Amino acid sequence: MAPQGRLAGVIPPLVIPLTNSRELDVESLERLVNHLIEGGVDGIFALGSSSEVVFHTDRMREQILETVTGVVAGRVPVLAGVIDTETNRVLEHVKTAQKYGVAGVVATAPFYAITGPAEIERHFRVLGEHAEVPVWAYDLPVCVHVKLSPHMLVALGSEGLLTGVKDSSGDDVSFRRLTAMNRAAGSPLSVLTGHEVVVDGAYLSGADGSVPGLGNVDPAGYVRMHKAFVEGDWQKVRTEQDRLAALFEIVFQPVGKTGPAAGVGAFKTALRELGLFATNMMSEPMTPIEGESVEKIRGILQSTGLLK
Amino acid sequence: MAPQGRLAGVIPPLVIPLTNSRELDVESLERLVNHLIEGGVDGIFALGSSSEVVFHTDRMREQILETVTGVVAGRVPVLAGVIDTETNRVLEHVKTAQKYGVAGVVATAPFYAITGPAEIERHFRVLGEHAEVPVWAYDLPVCVHVKLSPHMLVALGSEGLLTGVKDSSGDDVSFRRLTAMNRAAGSPLSVLTGHEVVVDGAYLSGADGSVPGLGNVDPAGYVRMHKAFVEGDWQKVRTEQDRLAALFEIVFQPVGKTGPAAGVGAFKTALRELGLFATNMMSEPMTPIEGESVEKIRGILQSTGLLK
Amino acid sequence: MAPQGRLAGVIPPLVIPLTNSRELDVESLERLVNHLIEGGVDGIFALGSSSEVVFHTDRMREQILETVTGVVAGRVPVLAGVIDTETNRVLEHVKTAQKYGVAGVVATAPFYAITGPAEIERHFRVLGEHAEVPVWAYDLPVCVHVKLSPHMLVALGSEGLLTGVKDSSGDDVSFRRLTAMNRAAGSPLSVLTGHEVVVDGAYLSGADGSVPGLGNVDPAGYVRMHKAFVEGDWQKVRTEQDRLAALFEIVFQPVGKTGPAAGVGAFKTALRELGLFATNMMSEPMTPIEGESVEKIRGILQSTGLLK
Amino acid sequence: MAPQGRLAGVIPPLVIPLTNSRELDVESLERLVNHLIEGGVDGIFALGSSSEVVFHTDRMREQILETVTGVVAGRVPVLAGVIDTETNRVLEHVKTAQKYGVAGVVATAPFYAITGPAEIERHFRVLGEHAEVPVWAYDLPVCVHVKLSPHMLVALGSEGLLTGVKDSSGDDVSFRRLTAMNRAAGSPLSVLTGHEVVVDGAYLSGADGSVPGLGNVDPAGYVRMHKAFVEGDWQKVRTEQDRLAALFEIVFQPVGKTGPAAGVGAFKTALRELGLFATNMMSEPMTPIEGESVEKIRGILQSTGLLK
Repeated sequence: MAPQGRLAGVIPPLVIPLTNSRELDVESLERLVNHLIEGGVDGIFALGSSSEVVFHTDRMREQILETVTGVVAGRVPVLAGVIDTETNRVLEHVKTAQKYGVAGVVATAPFYAITGPAEIERHFRVLGEHAEVPVWAYDLPVCVHVKLSPHMLVALGSEGLLTGVKDSSGDDVSFRRLTAMNRAAGSPLSVLTGHEVVVDGAYLSGADGSVPGLGNVDPAGYVRMHKAFVEGDWQKVRTEQDRLAALFEIVFQPVGKTGPAAGVGAFKTALRELGLFATNMMSEPMTPIEGESVEKIRGILQSTGLLK
Repeated sequence: MAPQGRLAGVIPPLVIPLTNSRELDVESLERLVNHLIEGGVDGIFALGSSSEVVFHTDRMREQILETVTGVVAGRVPVLAGVIDTETNRVLEHVKTAQKYGVAGVVATAPFYAITGPAEIERHFRVLGEHAEVPVWAYDLPVCVHVKLSPHMLVALGSEGLLTGVKDSSGDDVSFRRLTAMNRAAGSPLSVLTGHEVVVDGAYLSGADGSVPGLGNVDPAGYVRMHKAFVEGDWQKVRTEQDRLAALFEIVFQPVGKTGPAAGVGAFKTALRELGLFATNMMSEPMTPIEGESVEKIRGILQSTGLLK
Repeated sequence: MAPQGRLAGVIPPLVIPLTNSRELDVESLERLVNHLIEGGVDGIFALGSSSEVVFHTDRMREQILETVTGVVAGRVPVLAGVIDTETNRVLEHVKTAQKYGVAGVVATAPFYAITGPAEIERHFRVLGEHAEVPVWAYDLPVCVHVKLSPHMLVALGSEGLLTGVKDSSGDDVSFRRLTAMNRAAGSPLSVLTGHEVVVDGAYLSGADGSVPGLGNVDPAGYVRMHKAFVEGDWQKVRTEQDRLAALFEIVFQPVGKTGPAAGVGAFKTALRELGLFATNMMSEPMTPIEGESVEKIRGILQSTGLLK
Repeated sequence: MAPQGRLAGVIPPLVIPLTNSRELDVESLERLVNHLIEGGVDGIFALGSSSEVVFHTDRMREQILETVTGVVAGRVPVLAGVIDTETNRVLEHVKTAQKYGVAGVVATAPFYAITGPAEIERHFRVLGEHAEVPVWAYDLPVCVHVKLSPHMLVALGSEGLLTGVKDSSGDDVSFRRLTAMNRAAGSPLSVLTGHEVVVDGAYLSGADGSVPGLGNVDPAGYVRMHKAFVEGDWQKVRTEQDRLAALFEIVFQPVGKTGPAAGVGAFKTALRELGLFATNMMSEPMTPIEGESVEKIRGILQSTGLLK
């Protein structure tokens, strides 16, 4: 489905376990990585938003990358997020990532400082020219506050400067335009969706795969859905997606939390309840989910068949 | 598919033809309505955004409703938009609409003045209690600047105060939550999507039908897609949607125009090129599409098989 | 200070008293109008946001205008808001307003439907050409979701199509550019600020006056501040403004309310506590402020010297 | 004016000169720093938005800080921006800044990841507890996409965790509330405005000083305005501000550029035309201002008396 040498299928964005003192919990990470690979995933995306990437120091980022690539040990390709404000800072992360043999790097448009279309295109162009591994564009307006233009993405793809797109734009109309333009250009880009509960619709729109944060909790479910898609069994795709959408309700349970404190926090809590993580600790300045919200998350894990 | 007495299928939001002096062009309107009904649509939504509803005086709105219901003559149900800023003004439009035997009225949340969740719920509650016809909620954050809560919609549906939702929110994650909550509540609501190019994904998500502006231009295409959906032929759904998505590119051709001046303007231009409209005139303060953009729209009509 | 024939000074946007059954309370309105005129205001702006204009039916709007102009009886000029979504609808309100001998009409840019700069300019141009009374532009991005361009405003002012601007944009940088451009063009526009707590800074920036919602509660305070400004007594300007800013804290007291339900609601509550209004009732779908918030508003009225 | 040991007056956010190959231009930087100090500024803010801080690698940031503090050599206090996405990353910058004897560090709320009020407060609390120098909060919603709450700022100020605020929020209503709350709490915070063209209004509102990017170009003008403010000569304050507002028009001349590419770019261009900078080069992915825009900037420098 995806272009030669490109990624397709299920590539979960890794959630990172912390100890109670907010250090990297290597054992839990090892359990999670094995859980994903045994679930059949096609790749792992480390240092994305689900990894709380912007919360970590450079040292911690590198420690995560070293640990993840060590545990994965080549069993599946690893993509590395190189999320930072502007070109020169991103290039530093690219250099670090390349030391660990990653299959590609994933970069957003510049953020914090306001930039226009010319600067955004130049940013990805510079990254594409300097990186020694494939570059993926990460479209995430909720964090970056700008929407990537399908025209620009496909143009840079055609020039060989971009390899793929992780679309978390929440703009399904633009997503269909992107896949159509990409197809018309000979499919230079792998196009993956980051929206856990509408992967089925994204497949209809032409997605090559998904990067579902919820895939940390139930990788096998996403893998079954992808298989059904490849086999053209849309009824099965839909049924699996409906179950995963019911599971995704865990992120709406935390009270008084928003953003990753709610979403990633819910994934961590579920992973702890499933016995994969030792804690559901979050990076500063976030605090872990507690109390009744945990019970509600347990209840959803049970009703969707993941917990007895 | 839809609950007893509720609407499902293809219900295009009517585009309104104007003469060069910006009067209602009754003949063209008659041609369009017949074009839709012959195309097999399941209903017609008059006085929505595609009807330039907020551009018209009350007198013109009533003239449109009188003409449309007269031409339709009971062949399909007609929904009427009652779009206005706040509850009391909307109720005035409801009273007018009821005079013309409409099958339902379609209202947004309050706009212009800032209101919170309590006021929005009370607004729909008052409408539901006072209207003598079914009330539909229109979720259109791009105009109303607020997103309707799935919880509230389903709760009001369960109380019998709302009959359906036209979702043009551009939020496919929320849309899936809405259909899931609706199903869990016994499907009190008909749920229709307003996004022309992802109706296929909306069907997977549980939509009962669509309200596609582009359905003015190619009603038969949307009807074929809906039939394929009912028959479970997803490959055909997808193929038809891909063709319609290619047709939708007409709205991106106008240069220097935005909003309805581009979108509705492109529909009107296409309808003129197809011989259904006499002009592509727009309401003040908009101006019609001219020059090279018209040629590009013609080209797309040809490449998608609507024009020779 | 203001150009020949134009308004300057203090022109409060009228708050409209309702009975408990949400009818117009004519007696309270009479008391308020007299309170304002006795306080020394230079004009009255009826049917602005503070009048809950978008909440009223056309019939109610006309009743308000008839009552207000009747009670004012020529003692000060009356401006009338003609707030509606698009050009043709606004022109209907202009015609109505003209029947009541108003000194000018106040219009926003188009809202609800998305429009670009060309449509916004054409909108004001059509209004300026058709209205028989001076047209004021109302810059209120929080409701209209677009910011008026200083360039466009001054250009239309120079052509005689606009007479003044009520700036509630919350953009003090743009406000200074507007006054500077206006001055450079020979001051075709009266420029008034709508921000109650920074009128002093607006004077420094070149404002001709203010349209303070809080001026319903304490017109004399705003009049004293304006007099001090005209006399160049900046220390007095500042002291008065600081007191009025302390009074403005009443709008932050309501719990669980936002927009006019909080702001206009607080003004109405204060006017009731001061004995000018019989109720603090709000238009549907808003509800009046109750409970502890009322006590807090009373406390602020006392600490700022308006209530014993 | 400002609390004991706190900063007041004019503290320009340093613009950073680059060579044509985008290295730090130490000679030009030296000229600029001396220009500022000779102009009479009360402090220098390095590594703020005007320093293109988020465009620089950590190495470059440290080089800038080392150079600036070396050239300043204790003649005025130096504040250092510690701008980064989240708490742990910001703390790394705090540690670096402390090595260079800065008088304080300036931090924004977390950005990129969505955080709520609890996380924002915890973020500043952690910074205040860990930093060995005073911490300033930088309120910059246009970049950070969140507005800091005056309540929170004053509360943390009262606890000794924050020393001051640089307000670039563009929200003059909130600014007045902040200064009023601060005064009511015994003025624990120094409050500075970042808006170059309304410093006079900010003084009326209770500001202790300003952090004007334009102060790189004309430090003496801002110093004269501050002196006039301290002396209570408001007419002089206003006249000086009007001239500086006319000078600020340089940032609106660049065509096709936005954000720092326009604003900081215009400052750099002016500094080059004034002979202080060797180039007007910008950080990747921005490009310098060229062509007619440069001529327009020269024209404004001439008409405002800075260039012959």
